Amino acid sequence: MLRSRLLQIAPALALGLSLQGYAAPTVQVLDSNLTQAEVVAAQKGWCDALLKISAAYASGGFSKAKATAEAVIDQAYAYQYGPVAFKPTLATGSQTFRPTRAGALAYFVGGNPAFPNDKGFALKPWRSCEVINQVIQLNGGYATTMGNVRFVDSSGKTTTVDKTWSFMKEPDGSIRIVLHHSSLPFEG
Amino acid sequence: MLRSRLLQIAPALALGLSLQGYAAPTVQVLDSNLTQAEVVAAQKGWCDALLKISAAYASGGFSKAKATAEAVIDQAYAYQYGPVAFKPTLATGSQTFRPTRAGALAYFVGGNPAFPNDKGFALKPWRSCEVINQVIQLNGGYATTMGNVRFVDSSGKTTTVDKTWSFMKEPDGSIRIVLHHSSLPFEG
Amino acid sequence: MLRSRLLQIAPALALGLSLQGYAAPTVQVLDSNLTQAEVVAAQKGWCDALLKISAAYASGGFSKAKATAEAVIDQAYAYQYGPVAFKPTLATGSQTFRPTRAGALAYFVGGNPAFPNDKGFALKPWRSCEVINQVIQLNGGYATTMGNVRFVDSSGKTTTVDKTWSFMKEPDGSIRIVLHHSSLPFEG
Amino acid sequence: MLRSRLLQIAPALALGLSLQGYAAPTVQVLDSNLTQAEVVAAQKGWCDALLKISAAYASGGFSKAKATAEAVIDQAYAYQYGPVAFKPTLATGSQTFRPTRAGALAYFVGGNPAFPNDKGFALKPWRSCEVINQVIQLNGGYATTMGNVRFVDSSGKTTTVDKTWSFMKEPDGSIRIVLHHSSLPFEG
Repeated sequence: MLRSRLLQIAPALALGLSLQGYAAPTVQVLDSNLTQAEVVAAQKGWCDALLKISAAYASGGFSKAKATAEAVIDQAYAYQYGPVAFKPTLATGSQTFRPTRAGALAYFVGGNPAFPNDKGFALKPWRSCEVINQVIQLNGGYATTMGNVRFVDSSGKTTTVDKTWSFMKEPDGSIRIVLHHSSLPFEG
Repeated sequence: MLRSRLLQIAPALALGLSLQGYAAPTVQVLDSNLTQAEVVAAQKGWCDALLKISAAYASGGFSKAKATAEAVIDQAYAYQYGPVAFKPTLATGSQTFRPTRAGALAYFVGGNPAFPNDKGFALKPWRSCEVINQVIQLNGGYATTMGNVRFVDSSGKTTTVDKTWSFMKEPDGSIRIVLHHSSLPFEG
Repeated sequence: MLRSRLLQIAPALALGLSLQGYAAPTVQVLDSNLTQAEVVAAQKGWCDALLKISAAYASGGFSKAKATAEAVIDQAYAYQYGPVAFKPTLATGSQTFRPTRAGALAYFVGGNPAFPNDKGFALKPWRSCEVINQVIQLNGGYATTMGNVRFVDSSGKTTTVDKTWSFMKEPDGSIRIVLHHSSLPFEG
Repeated sequence: MLRSRLLQIAPALALGLSLQGYAAPTVQVLDSNLTQAEVVAAQKGWCDALLKISAAYASGGFSKAKATAEAVIDQAYAYQYGPVAFKPTLATGSQTFRPTRAGALAYFVGGNPAFPNDKGFALKPWRSCEVINQVIQLNGGYATTMGNVRFVDSSGKTTTVDKTWSFMKEPDGSIRIVLHHSSLPFEG
């Protein structure tokens, strides 16, 4: 539930104003549902954040990229509430899944000896990031999307991944990723 | 989740149509949330159903009223899924709560020796039924309303009750009452 | 979702430990559901809080009772997230519903000129408070109860009310009232 | 909500039996939450169904496999409620995603000219199917799992995939897949 979407509905909505002993009622509405527009905005926010980490690395090196990635993860992922179901595109072996914040950070910027195969996906010179949805499911404050994300880097090379996200709206109005499964397309 | 609200979103929504190897995507959206408009319509449906039972009694007597009430209960209340939290306005003593369909039917039309105090609330000559909301809470496929309902009978007498309803959207798209607490206003 | 219920499930649960290239997996479970035991505990918490306000009034007068009630409301009700659907037993007329924290506080301790009919329900010399459930509905992090609450005061006089509560589990693990409809039994 | 989990709680739970005018109350509990045990059982059900289709093909050829797969899909997937977010392991190109029942059936048994690259994943001589969970998230009647599934065929060859499922409990008590993202491990 969400303060920010609390709407004061004017009496125009409420008939029966002459009800004896009652002031003209004002309906207070609390809407905690995720809308399609919010979901699409959250996806765009993820893309924008990736480009931001990449730009931070170009302008300020690893330390700036890492600080940016930490802020992004804390805002975009729900690690503060528990394990996130996160399977990054290029993670391998026993570190395929990243249910902890440390694992997510390592994937995005590398530099963590505990995750030796992580090169830092977000450090690449990404120039654009685009979401192409195939399915969107809205279930109250929980929403899932499945489709592709297409990245283009500074050389013009395109990388396309198959991506599933689930988002959850928290009581403070923030929308966070609780599930993220990304994979390279199968080459049949 | 709900077939009836499945929307086929045209490619206009989906950018990146030139994605190599991909047909122009069509987003399939599944929206299982209850909207405020659906909740208000369900409330009006309850009022209309009450007037319908009352009219059935006037035109066809008890048997017609009972058949109408049975259809209304099966459509408007969720008894087929389990106990409904139902506290009717005028129920008393050990029969204050009506978690079963039989108890709801007895309240609306009476005539059940197992519920000897039930006179049949819906048999009264109701002429209008109006909902005045004070609070609406939307939580995915679950929504709650609190406010007043004002009934007027054939003599012009008005009865006002304090009423709380919770509605749930079922997978077939139907919207059913899972909670109904009605009470006469406190006379301080 | 809830840090406090994050369980680390030992490998015993997870078969296939010899899976090549995979460390013995540890399942991380995030359970955000409300259980019946949590709901019953939250109901008892409400009763205990009422007795606490009453005792604070007896020992420290209005100011102590008010401070206690404020702490109780902030912990037990979800006003910080939006309007609570609250219909107190003895509230009347245009102030029957209390969707704001100020209205709840006035009901419990009185002393607010904006709510002139409020005598302070929690200031009475309550000695016991007992919940008798008739229906409990568990829906994920949302639960509803309907039944009676029986209060006994210092003179031994018993007051019984019909009461509906809905509780919601917040991401920090707190369980808060989002709906509270209380009414005196109908005297047929 | 769910008839099958409706529990009649004996009066032992409910104190205050001497409440005047009230029969000994019986609490009716409606629990619509998915438990971890139900989720694990649903995963096992998916594995068992895959082996069943494979065995049907071995014993009865394509037509028996197809009939078996249709029954499996109708029971295990939520296509009757709308688009399922389904990304099978080996699907490619413009047919990577299978939001329709026809697309799921083609993936499992092939033989559909509209899906020319589908060989019929379930027709392979599978001998075992094992789920190794890494993350389980329980959110009311909705639950997500992420981890690996390991298949062994008649030659003893093992195939391991990264797999995410989301399950939803329907009002009739059935548990169905609404999200299924499967991918081959990244070979770094």
